Amino acid sequence: MIQVGIIGVGTVGESVAQILEANRDIISARAGKEIVVKKGVVRNLSRARDVDIPLTDNVDEVLDDPEIDIVVELMGGVEEPYRVVRKALQNGKAVVTANKALLAYHRYELQETAGELPFEFEASVAGGIPIIKALREGLSANHIESIKGIINGTANYILTKMMNEGVDFEPVLKEAQELGYAEADPTFDIGGFDAAHKLLILASIAYGIDAKPEEIMIEGIEQITQADIGFAKEFGYTIKLLGIAKKVGEFVELRVHPALVPQSQMIAKVDGVMNGISVIGDKVGETMYYGPGAGGDATASAVISDIIAIARGGKASPMLGFKRPLESGLKLLGRESIVSKYYLRLEVADRPGVLAKVSQVMGEQNISIETMLQKPGQEGSASLLLATHACEERAMQEALKALFELESVKERPMMIRMEA
Amino acid sequence: MIQVGIIGVGTVGESVAQILEANRDIISARAGKEIVVKKGVVRNLSRARDVDIPLTDNVDEVLDDPEIDIVVELMGGVEEPYRVVRKALQNGKAVVTANKALLAYHRYELQETAGELPFEFEASVAGGIPIIKALREGLSANHIESIKGIINGTANYILTKMMNEGVDFEPVLKEAQELGYAEADPTFDIGGFDAAHKLLILASIAYGIDAKPEEIMIEGIEQITQADIGFAKEFGYTIKLLGIAKKVGEFVELRVHPALVPQSQMIAKVDGVMNGISVIGDKVGETMYYGPGAGGDATASAVISDIIAIARGGKASPMLGFKRPLESGLKLLGRESIVSKYYLRLEVADRPGVLAKVSQVMGEQNISIETMLQKPGQEGSASLLLATHACEERAMQEALKALFELESVKERPMMIRMEA
Ligand SMILES: NC(=O)c1ccc[n+]([C@@H]2O[C@H](COP(=O)([O-])OP(=O)(O)OC[C@H]3O[C@@H](n4cnc5c(N)ncnc54)[C@H](OP(=O)(O)O)[C@@H]3O)[C@@H](O)[C@H]2O)c1
Ligand SMILES: NC(=O)c1ccc[n+]([C@@H]2O[C@H](COP(=O)([O-])OP(=O)(O)OC[C@H]3O[C@@H](n4cnc5c(N)ncnc54)[C@H](OP(=O)(O)O)[C@@H]3O)[C@@H](O)[C@H]2O)c1
Repeated sequence: MIQVGIIGVGTVGESVAQILEANRDIISARAGKEIVVKKGVVRNLSRARDVDIPLTDNVDEVLDDPEIDIVVELMGGVEEPYRVVRKALQNGKAVVTANKALLAYHRYELQETAGELPFEFEASVAGGIPIIKALREGLSANHIESIKGIINGTANYILTKMMNEGVDFEPVLKEAQELGYAEADPTFDIGGFDAAHKLLILASIAYGIDAKPEEIMIEGIEQITQADIGFAKEFGYTIKLLGIAKKVGEFVELRVHPALVPQSQMIAKVDGVMNGISVIGDKVGETMYYGPGAGGDATASAVISDIIAIARGGKASPMLGFKRPLESGLKLLGRESIVSKYYLRLEVADRPGVLAKVSQVMGEQNISIETMLQKPGQEGSASLLLATHACEERAMQEALKALFELESVKERPMMIRMEA
Repeated sequence: MIQVGIIGVGTVGESVAQILEANRDIISARAGKEIVVKKGVVRNLSRARDVDIPLTDNVDEVLDDPEIDIVVELMGGVEEPYRVVRKALQNGKAVVTANKALLAYHRYELQETAGELPFEFEASVAGGIPIIKALREGLSANHIESIKGIINGTANYILTKMMNEGVDFEPVLKEAQELGYAEADPTFDIGGFDAAHKLLILASIAYGIDAKPEEIMIEGIEQITQADIGFAKEFGYTIKLLGIAKKVGEFVELRVHPALVPQSQMIAKVDGVMNGISVIGDKVGETMYYGPGAGGDATASAVISDIIAIARGGKASPMLGFKRPLESGLKLLGRESIVSKYYLRLEVADRPGVLAKVSQVMGEQNISIETMLQKPGQEGSASLLLATHACEERAMQEALKALFELESVKERPMMIRMEA
């Protein structure tokens, strides 16, 4: 028998307790022993919960209980769970968490504290998809060349609706909020921050890179319009919010932003609230993992898979780069040096000479244009849609500044990166 | 240090030796120790190999070497590798194999012989995709409701070409043979037998069911024509060779056959030589795994992931149902009792009364028709395309017999099962 304490019995915690009960047969068969929830911790003891486990509002009743083997942290937040998880590890308990925000900031310190103790977090990225086990164990023979993930269901739901139904961003967001797919304050999801947390976790597993959210490129989907979606469709692309980790020589680039993805790619076919992660390994080539990125039961499925692995006595390989610098000590590539192709939309005055001016600005930054398309806009104006060849972010940012300074360019230019 | 013997240094074996060398840094970091190939076994010692390991043509030099910890079986076949693997296990060695034919027949005996010794076979299904780890570990909290897999790249390549380019079966097969995607004798791939071997392995992991290939429904793709593909396209389907394992009450149904799959499903989007497996767990819902199903390096990636797991001292959960009857002792559902929807194509004489006759036959078997479509055929004949509601295989087989006996039905009716 192995005893578990669940800190946080909310959406996910409740599902964990319920599934451990409902699927007891198969779970204990796979774990090789009974898994028993000894106690759950909540803030508000007076609220009814749909679980049959003893509850407390005192976290120390779990942390200091010598009979509890595994602490499952499902409370959310960053600093409070950091203290809780640290204390659990210091008290010699294995820890399982689904908390991507915690891991985005404290994964290396906690891994250090854990030492040889299991410290598992399959549920922290892409909910029910076993992507961390795939990266860590399934692809363990490979150097990872790149990871591209649709790892925020809310953003993907909104973009899918915008693509399929021709609706604008604002009404779709409102609908997503009404359906419970988006929070009242949706910044975290649509601004790319949640995806960035998850990307950092994946990048740690693959590259052992210890970056913080503040250090990487994060852009959201708020600016995307039907004009951009029209261009995407016309040229065989779809628009997805991607988290990208890529090895470039001695560097790793990490970025979250909306991207034009060719419709033929598997990842382009991941629609609605679903998540999907494409991983390219140097030996295996591309593999892709698809499934529900959130929801109580789906997330609990991943939490319990970690509990079972611990119960079986398995040792996970820690994040790369932890203790043992690996991949010859990869460094974070500066934002400015990231190379990409770009799509631009310029709202310009519809008069002669504009095209020449735009081309000149691009030329000054050594950016060559691959496709250019002019569409009539409102009275006296036009939309200039263009796709560039690959260039550095630095050059593109200079070009965007110079373009916006052109007299004939009426709004801040729209830019979306393009994935090959 | 852990020492490995590779029995069979062909396509996959060569890649295993090469990758262990090329990715030594990351592999030993993840394994926690050096992995050294002490010896490889081949039949023909005089043929040059592109690997730098000592070779022998005497398998006992590996099996009886007390320094070898892991035997990697990559020789192919069934009875010869069975003896080899059994002896390796009896000599106390861990075993890794990619041999699906061996496992289709002997997986339970070998698991028994293995006892507590690691006996791993990630590479045996879907090459580089870590589907076995996903089922065993990633989804370990779930009862598996169904598995649907595109697990034969050759068949999928042919069907994709037929769908996309309007070409008939024979010329596409010939092309696939010229490109090396299909063997000179392609029966094994296009007849569904290879997919059946893999399906049995997946079903053992998920359900602990000990069926043999001869006991399950296996149909190939040889009969599919452009007429069927036309119907599929018209009604929003694609045609895929699927391996299906599904829990139905106390039973498991196992079947391999071409199927009409709605284009909206993720698995319908798996094209060309790629593999994809959709798994539905009772708690997580649908997850899908995509990647290369064959090829030396992709397959070796999976073989090495097993070697690394063994080196780390991990214990895999054995197949369900092994030793400990699970899922309340699931039994194999008889072919006759499998329930499905069906598509039929009848080449009929184009004269009054035919439709009535066909409807009558279906009615006698209590099969109701969902869609019916008549297309003009060659002089005096017509194609009758119809989709049924769900019924038992037994009823459908009776109906097919009766239909073929109708005077106005000119050829053996074509039938393809439909997946919802
Ligand atoms: N929901 C998902 O689909 C999903 C998916 C992936 C990952 N996650 C992650 O899983 C974690 C939990 O998410 P959730 O959706 O389950 O959150 P939730 O529904 O808000 O539940 C949080 C639980 O933690 C308890 N709690 C919060 N602060 C506490 C404190 N200081 N002391 C004791 N108990 C405390 C709450 O108690 P009260 O009930 O008394 O307020 C509640 O039971 C988060 O890190 C989240 O990012 C969630
Ligand atoms: N190729 C793939 O993409 C792939 C994918 C998934 C799984 N698999 C499985 O992996 C296994 C190996 O496939 P493969 O494509 O690598 O086969 P292969 O290229 O034919 O190689 C077989 C190797 O085994 C050796 N061998 C055969 N019989 C032997 C015996 N009795 N004693 C000693 N050595 C013997 C052969 O020696 P010689 O070289 O001297 O003839 C050869 O080196 C098979 O079970 C296959 O189903 C293959």
